[in-house]
Amino acid sequence: MAKIAALSGFPEWLPAERLVEQHVIDVFREVAELHGFSGIETRAVEPLEQMLRKGEIDKEVYVLRRLHAEDDADGESSDPSRTLGLHFDLTVPLARYVLEHQNDLAFPLRRFQIQKVWRGERPQDGRFREFYQADLDVIGQDTLPGHIEAEVAVVMAEILDRLPLPAFTIHANTRRLSEGFFRSLGLEDNAAVLRSLDKLPKIGADAVRALLREEAGASEEQAEAALAFASIRTRDASFADQVRALGGNGEMVEQGIAELTAVIERVEAAVPGVVVADLSIARGLDYYTGTVFETFVTGHESLGSICSGGRYDSLASDNRHTYPGVGLSIGLSRLVSRLLSAGLAKPSRPVPTCVLVSVADEQHRGASDEAARQLRRRGIACEVAPTAAKFGKQIRYADRRGIPFIWFPGTDGVADEVKDIRSGEQVPADAATWEPPAEDRVVRILGSEAEDSAAKD
Amino acid sequence: MAKIAALSGFPEWLPAERLVEQHVIDVFREVAELHGFSGIETRAVEPLEQMLRKGEIDKEVYVLRRLHAEDDADGESSDPSRTLGLHFDLTVPLARYVLEHQNDLAFPLRRFQIQKVWRGERPQDGRFREFYQADLDVIGQDTLPGHIEAEVAVVMAEILDRLPLPAFTIHANTRRLSEGFFRSLGLEDNAAVLRSLDKLPKIGADAVRALLREEAGASEEQAEAALAFASIRTRDASFADQVRALGGNGEMVEQGIAELTAVIERVEAAVPGVVVADLSIARGLDYYTGTVFETFVTGHESLGSICSGGRYDSLASDNRHTYPGVGLSIGLSRLVSRLLSAGLAKPSRPVPTCVLVSVADEQHRGASDEAARQLRRRGIACEVAPTAAKFGKQIRYADRRGIPFIWFPGTDGVADEVKDIRSGEQVPADAATWEPPAEDRVVRILGSEAEDSAAKD
Repeated sequence: MAKIAALSGFPEWLPAERLVEQHVIDVFREVAELHGFSGIETRAVEPLEQMLRKGEIDKEVYVLRRLHAEDDADGESSDPSRTLGLHFDLTVPLARYVLEHQNDLAFPLRRFQIQKVWRGERPQDGRFREFYQADLDVIGQDTLPGHIEAEVAVVMAEILDRLPLPAFTIHANTRRLSEGFFRSLGLEDNAAVLRSLDKLPKIGADAVRALLREEAGASEEQAEAALAFASIRTRDASFADQVRALGGNGEMVEQGIAELTAVIERVEAAVPGVVVADLSIARGLDYYTGTVFETFVTGHESLGSICSGGRYDSLASDNRHTYPGVGLSIGLSRLVSRLLSAGLAKPSRPVPTCVLVSVADEQHRGASDEAARQLRRRGIACEVAPTAAKFGKQIRYADRRGIPFIWFPGTDGVADEVKDIRSGEQVPADAATWEPPAEDRVVRILGSEAEDSAAKD
Repeated sequence: MAKIAALSGFPEWLPAERLVEQHVIDVFREVAELHGFSGIETRAVEPLEQMLRKGEIDKEVYVLRRLHAEDDADGESSDPSRTLGLHFDLTVPLARYVLEHQNDLAFPLRRFQIQKVWRGERPQDGRFREFYQADLDVIGQDTLPGHIEAEVAVVMAEILDRLPLPAFTIHANTRRLSEGFFRSLGLEDNAAVLRSLDKLPKIGADAVRALLREEAGASEEQAEAALAFASIRTRDASFADQVRALGGNGEMVEQGIAELTAVIERVEAAVPGVVVADLSIARGLDYYTGTVFETFVTGHESLGSICSGGRYDSLASDNRHTYPGVGLSIGLSRLVSRLLSAGLAKPSRPVPTCVLVSVADEQHRGASDEAARQLRRRGIACEVAPTAAKFGKQIRYADRRGIPFIWFPGTDGVADEVKDIRSGEQVPADAATWEPPAEDRVVRILGSEAEDSAAKD
């Protein structure tokens, strides 16, 4: 065989690790469906032309060609309009899907989508070339009520709340509030102000104050007010009074306050203690047209925002319709990678199997099959020992795989027995009725707290 | 916007159709896990060199290049050993995964894998360029007991049995039986005999008889016996006596009989009435080294085999180990496509939402949110109406989406009410305790029989 080497940037999990990734995907889907979101998948490829409309990404696209395309009449590789690339996100495909299928979709469309995306970036700093994104969007046809922004944030909060994460915080701001405030200060170059404030964490208040004066034309007083605005962080609607106290006023400011208040209050009602109004958030405010979200995990701020998004007024449009949306996206592989590498989540066992059914000898394999069938009928995952080795060896086999129970089918009228490999306890049991402890029935994903308490036992 | 067109060969489902695909995937995973199979995913790309070892597929591979690769030092496109292609099946990646991770895997490895694969074939005859495969394999390290062949067939039978399929039949044969039988007839060119018999459905017995004489050097008597052998089809182990009556004897024949009997009896015990010993199966017997399986759906034979596989003695090997396996693969997208196009399966409703919670006016949206939260707490999927339109309009909104229930939160001490949109019945209800009928709780996938009985109601 040729030598086998891992490909940098293309992560691959071992079976036990995949259980954690699958759990994260399952939670996302379960919560999204509870909120009436439909799952879709789009094809992995889009015409290169369509993807290049997002100029910043053009270096990162993987282009496809058929190995022998030059030999045949198809000619894909020579006609650029037919060149296909792997999608680098799930937003470009969603826009195309919405336009392509608009006559068959009900709007507002509530859709989630969990798929791999590909970017030809240099794999470094935990950036992958192939990774899962998990997206959640509500897309309206021509109109989309403002309160959807709060609603999507609630769904995100509930998803994150059910994941085996340490404490996380969803930071929310809204374009209208920032823009309205800067306007009511007399600062008209909104983009320049946002660009300056975006640098706050990196270069500090003094440097940003200078930038505001040089780049955004702010007076000392205006710069001071902008900095004070950006320092506002509240867990409730009290940010509003602070904004007003700094001189924020006018219709736009009040609209922004109402929007952001709705977001904070609805998320707080659904998942207490996770959302914060954070008026320093500037990134994305020039792209999104309403509320914008970023999410950070306590102690893992180096991950950056694990879940971001907001409102955009036009996902797509054609001659007949415009499609505004509110969307959030989790960089799922990156998050799972951290959960695994930091020991934040692990499966309660490395395999789905709850019970290994032993085999006394090959002549009695049928009895073992029957016991396994009875257990499976009640949803208890089991496998039958691959060989009729000595029982000690079969026990070690189960132990090595992390299977918690081993089943001994009785012969000649003797009752079956089941042994808990961890405690060594062995008791008579009936395959038609035996129940494992609830915590052993299916694989559970344990967070680090659960690990701690398990370690104490 | 550029014009939007579907890409031939890249199927994409609408949300309701995706529910059917997701169901098939869920069933596969659930049954596989019940049997102790671990789910894995491999990266979508493999080095082109590795994939080209399977010569027959080389025209079909999609090769990747980074859009601006020629501009930088990475040079992937110029170094063929670093050229990547999209995997065209899940077997080549599994072989590489097993070798790469062999020190971290427990053998026999029981793994399932459900992922998209890509083939640059001309999209015709229902062939896709991007499609899901669902694979199930048991991989041993150096050895793998023969009874695993029966075990994998059982898992497949249970998966297929739970899918919304019309009647299906798993046809099994084993190489040792065919080869042993032909040898005991005195026919040594096993490959030529198999090649001839493989043409039976297309060219008929007379033409195959001629082929056997010309290509496999068979006498008239030998050709007749081979044809009689290939006509054996039994639902139980009685094929054995028929084989012996035709002159089959010797160790290889008896081994083959024992193998195939074990498969038939184990599958019959698990899922009665689906397996058949079919000694006409020749395809793949030169590739597989033990039992071989093909599966046909009654009335949909034009689909070809929806699930095929068998035993292979070497999935992969390196200096230290050889990895034999038994595997089965479902062409999942092709199957789902037929389920949808032939109306064999459809979701009980097109969206996950069970209840639309109406909104009396925007001031009372919080009450609607709270009712929805209480319902969701007990796993009842709901969405809150996007606008506080007139109730008639909200009811039509739910109806159009296929949501079966609409909830009216009470105000000022009046009880909540819930309306079944289909029957029109409206009753007082408490969001903390109300239960929808069991059949409405979550989306179910209805087979065509269920459709029939539903139509009778």
